[in-house]
Amino acid sequence: MKMSLDCVACFVRQSLDAARLVTTDEIEQERIVRDVMRWLSDQGLEHSPPVLAQLVHRRLREISQVGDPYREAKTRHNAMAFDLLPELRAQIASSDDPLALATRLAIAGNVIDMGMKSMVAEDDVRESIRHALEEPFVGEWEDYRQAVANAKRILYLADNAGEIAFDRLLIEQLAPERVTVAVRGAPVLNDATHEDAQAVGLHEIVTVIDNGSDAPGTLLHECTPELQRLFSTADLIIAKGQGNFESLSHQGHDVFFLFKVKCPVIARHVNLPMGTQVLRQYKD
Amino acid sequence: MKMSLDCVACFVRQSLDAARLVTTDEIEQERIVRDVMRWLSDQGLEHSPPVLAQLVHRRLREISQVGDPYREAKTRHNAMAFDLLPELRAQIASSDDPLALATRLAIAGNVIDMGMKSMVAEDDVRESIRHALEEPFVGEWEDYRQAVANAKRILYLADNAGEIAFDRLLIEQLAPERVTVAVRGAPVLNDATHEDAQAVGLHEIVTVIDNGSDAPGTLLHECTPELQRLFSTADLIIAKGQGNFESLSHQGHDVFFLFKVKCPVIARHVNLPMGTQVLRQYKD
Repeated sequence: MKMSLDCVACFVRQSLDAARLVTTDEIEQERIVRDVMRWLSDQGLEHSPPVLAQLVHRRLREISQVGDPYREAKTRHNAMAFDLLPELRAQIASSDDPLALATRLAIAGNVIDMGMKSMVAEDDVRESIRHALEEPFVGEWEDYRQAVANAKRILYLADNAGEIAFDRLLIEQLAPERVTVAVRGAPVLNDATHEDAQAVGLHEIVTVIDNGSDAPGTLLHECTPELQRLFSTADLIIAKGQGNFESLSHQGHDVFFLFKVKCPVIARHVNLPMGTQVLRQYKD
Repeated sequence: MKMSLDCVACFVRQSLDAARLVTTDEIEQERIVRDVMRWLSDQGLEHSPPVLAQLVHRRLREISQVGDPYREAKTRHNAMAFDLLPELRAQIASSDDPLALATRLAIAGNVIDMGMKSMVAEDDVRESIRHALEEPFVGEWEDYRQAVANAKRILYLADNAGEIAFDRLLIEQLAPERVTVAVRGAPVLNDATHEDAQAVGLHEIVTVIDNGSDAPGTLLHECTPELQRLFSTADLIIAKGQGNFESLSHQGHDVFFLFKVKCPVIARHVNLPMGTQVLRQYKD
């Protein structure tokens, strides 16, 4: 999916959010935002948003000299989401259709996205859960159910910290022994890395690999050979979040994308209103 | 009120909105946004937001060579708001407290602000009206009522096109013979100029002057001598919208500010939640 000029305006805001996470010194925040803005004004727009986002966040880490600006927020989101698991797991256990409910909850968790919103509170998450349970979602539900029933090898591309606790609920329903979860290879935004998978106990139930990349999406050409191999051999790929959608929707490989429509650029691209919960295969 | 770095991110978005209004050519839109971004990265942040916004929008008009990018939108908003007047005027006429209702409606009209939102639809306006009528607002209501009762000369600083139709409802209640309405001296954003005052018939009931400035606020030092004189001699000044608030809240002169809190920078500054309807005197 190609970048829009809206993404550029959004990156300026992201740089301010990140600057505020790494320092309380307003002069320093200003220096960071000015630098990113000047640099951004010379960047091409021919790639997908995660390609430029990767460069923006590399630059942010370089200027601020903070390797993981979102670490504290990620830890907080993991704890917040993890605390909700017993209650949500009980709901799934007593549900008529545990796969459907766990899938909805995994989409609900996609609200924890600091690329879109600088602060994510527990109220936002609870509201998203309510929305996920009550509102219809746009999806190829039967194809997905069948793919889940038949798959021998499932590749699950995680998205954000916090959200990854909700992913755990779905992975528990998928029969973990056939699932490999891929997280980002290095910190970028509040995207989940090994540390976050560990924080919600994913390593105990499933194989977790990192994709070898610091893009907030999945740029296959720069992922590890292992990730590339799994991507081409898995019977079912589940890709969470907008970043994975933006970077993989043109791959032509069957991927089920699970995400909430959280920005106008995506909304225009998929022709669905903001807030829509999506479970769908796309090839554009 | 001093600028925030959030304002800078917001100006990048505004430049994209304006670029899309002046051309459908994406290459040209990109050129405009890149230029504004590069230029913004070198600007100081020591002034109030309308000071930098004035420069941003001058630059936008210069690069795009379009003197009034928001003209079409302003005309549409004037017509949309004007069409609502008979219905709203009837509501005011049958109200127990016409001044209160007209004041609420004038604040509701402040939703028509393209600095905040690139598209304003009739639904947004109707929702704002509903909100204005049903929700409480934060205000020095008794002081205001008394000031209105006693004033001999009222200066009414208008804000946006479209909104100015709602201002007319309040002005009708203020006894127009004592009111002078000031509009912007030249096009900037969707702020009201003489043309917009005329479109909603304000010239027929009241004296309309322009303030001589193309800032989206009231920068007194660059306003006409007439505006400055009226500002210092009026018994009551009513200033609509965030831009007038941002540029005048430190004047020390009694000004009643009427606006909706539409951005996080203002929300932090006045310590009120987003969406709050405000009728208040501020001196900071």
